[in-house]
Amino acid sequence: MLVNDQFRYEMPTKIEFGAGKVAHLAQYVTEVKGNRVLIVGDLGVLHAGIIERIETPLKKANIPYQIFSEIGTEATIESVANAYRVAREMHCDVVVGVGGGSSLDIAKSVGVLLGNGGEIRDYVGLDKVPAPGKPVIAIPTTAGTGSEITRFSVLSDKTEKAKLSVGSMFNCPAVALVDPELTLTLPPHLTATTGMDALTHALESYVNKETQPISEALSLEAMKRIASSLRLAVVQGENLNARKDMLLASTMAAMAFNTTRLGLAHSLAIPLGAKFNIPHGLVNAILLPEVMRFNVIGNPHKFIEIAHIFGEQIDGLTDREAAEKSVSAIRKLNEDIGIKQKLSDFNVKEEDLEEVAQEAMLSGNTPINPVKPTIEDLKNICRAVME
Amino acid sequence: MLVNDQFRYEMPTKIEFGAGKVAHLAQYVTEVKGNRVLIVGDLGVLHAGIIERIETPLKKANIPYQIFSEIGTEATIESVANAYRVAREMHCDVVVGVGGGSSLDIAKSVGVLLGNGGEIRDYVGLDKVPAPGKPVIAIPTTAGTGSEITRFSVLSDKTEKAKLSVGSMFNCPAVALVDPELTLTLPPHLTATTGMDALTHALESYVNKETQPISEALSLEAMKRIASSLRLAVVQGENLNARKDMLLASTMAAMAFNTTRLGLAHSLAIPLGAKFNIPHGLVNAILLPEVMRFNVIGNPHKFIEIAHIFGEQIDGLTDREAAEKSVSAIRKLNEDIGIKQKLSDFNVKEEDLEEVAQEAMLSGNTPINPVKPTIEDLKNICRAVME
Ligand SMILES: [Fe+2]
Ligand SMILES: [Fe+2]
Repeated sequence: MLVNDQFRYEMPTKIEFGAGKVAHLAQYVTEVKGNRVLIVGDLGVLHAGIIERIETPLKKANIPYQIFSEIGTEATIESVANAYRVAREMHCDVVVGVGGGSSLDIAKSVGVLLGNGGEIRDYVGLDKVPAPGKPVIAIPTTAGTGSEITRFSVLSDKTEKAKLSVGSMFNCPAVALVDPELTLTLPPHLTATTGMDALTHALESYVNKETQPISEALSLEAMKRIASSLRLAVVQGENLNARKDMLLASTMAAMAFNTTRLGLAHSLAIPLGAKFNIPHGLVNAILLPEVMRFNVIGNPHKFIEIAHIFGEQIDGLTDREAAEKSVSAIRKLNEDIGIKQKLSDFNVKEEDLEEVAQEAMLSGNTPINPVKPTIEDLKNICRAVME
Repeated sequence: MLVNDQFRYEMPTKIEFGAGKVAHLAQYVTEVKGNRVLIVGDLGVLHAGIIERIETPLKKANIPYQIFSEIGTEATIESVANAYRVAREMHCDVVVGVGGGSSLDIAKSVGVLLGNGGEIRDYVGLDKVPAPGKPVIAIPTTAGTGSEITRFSVLSDKTEKAKLSVGSMFNCPAVALVDPELTLTLPPHLTATTGMDALTHALESYVNKETQPISEALSLEAMKRIASSLRLAVVQGENLNARKDMLLASTMAAMAFNTTRLGLAHSLAIPLGAKFNIPHGLVNAILLPEVMRFNVIGNPHKFIEIAHIFGEQIDGLTDREAAEKSVSAIRKLNEDIGIKQKLSDFNVKEEDLEEVAQEAMLSGNTPINPVKPTIEDLKNICRAVME
């Protein structure tokens, strides 16, 4: 049964999962021996009434904290530098990140800097962080990035219109405080796009060449939960069971891809997102069916399994036909949850594709994709979802 | 889909999996900052030529080491004390455990003592170890206990004819070096009984009341691999793929039960093993089908899933009939791999059952079993496998 039979698996982050768990935040601050907290949260978090749920337990426990919220929709190098300055000024020794991927990625970067000094550019790349940082407690408010347990932070460099990635086991949060109640107010479209990011993580990890049995098991379970609950979470935002399934799926997908990495949807999503300001989950959702269509021949039995998980009728079909049912299943999912955008809606043009494809080719996710692409293949994937 | 929706999941141990990985042992000793190694291995390990595979990489890297091998088939309190004395005398700062559950449990105990002092009795119970010990590198040579990543050590107190258990996240090894080549020489009967221990772990974790989605996913994958590979590993000992599947299944089952614990097979296996000298895997194998029969009504859909995994034909059956197919599947498995023993083969008598049942009732695995047993229920399970 084994595919990849030489691998390392580790998971430095402790997961605390449960509705209402955020009320026990002070306990986790104490567990990681934190005394002064920097809270990193975006304005969405502040406005959705979530920030009170973070502050209340700290106040009750008399733990001093400082809020940093000068964050846009993306995590920028500048926000990291500003948050780090505040953390030093206030002598913070623990960082609580709360929000979507960008808040968590900034919080993780500040944790790295508090332990290692310098600036975050020093640590861009794989395994460039030399030592443990200060502990980070990551509290996701979207079910998507899985940043609460991954070793990756994706940071925007606005001057270069590029995304930089820090990947290090020392970048993993100490604790992921995973409370589905915090996702109840996430609007339908954000629920849809972040959910598709989680699905892309589970699926790309499951079919890529670096996967191994531990990640496969976690990806499978994540996809089953997404298949049964993403539509519900979008159309019944208040459905706590659907929210639980989605948040758990996103964390489990992250447990899967954290060691295996991903595939071509992410190779392309990073430059497209950076250059054309397309939200990460949305650009993945747009690309995923076309990337799957391209990948089917590289791992047909896995795609048959995916078709099965998403409820397709595959009895009596050839293997190839059954595998391709996975593609139509994901197209239907996008349609049901209201994802209708194409790349041209973000002003992507034919003449932009060469540069996007060149960058995607250099991504660490490209060589592990089940089918090795040419530059032309990468452009064709984009062309197919242009309009 | 969620059952248990409040849980903690953590896995302090780094897993290095792969055929031949043991040749890189020195690298892991350095990674955990070890300078002088205590190797803890039993005579079986010494005789099977495995010890050379441990010594060679240490010699090549000029890492000094001392071998401790005064170990019987069980891990005793006395062996722990002796190994700890040797470790202190030789100023060892890292412990390499190599062997079955008993060698690994002794190695883990020495690691705890090197970091915390005192004697191992001080740490018996759940979460009684106050601080991290010295790092342990655990190298399993059987695919069964999963001790290479669990927080549990089971130690024998020969004077009391009892088993003591240490359970603490500080008792988890730093590194699990999981090399299937080391299991190639395991004889058929030991392959069978240790394999049934792994199955009992996966299955009891999967159906118990403390399970949660992360453990469920790992249990499922472990059971699939055991279903496809245990018979092969027994009848074709040299089949490396079957050995890989089994060793991986045993590690994954341990990742599953490490946070959830187990069920009645283990509640009963511990006192029966201690009082009548029945090897742990064997007594689990004897008990498991009868425990399953007792548990079916507590979690019928899980047992249907198990029947399906073990290849039973369940179309057209009622749910109850389908669930009970899981029991006959495991009976057939026992038969195929040559496990024919009954409790009376070990001199267990009707008059012994009251004491065994009383002890089993106190186990932490009993309240989380899917069906709450009476003392009489526990005795009846034993009676059914008496002869
Ligand atoms: Fe992503
Ligand atoms: Fe066991």
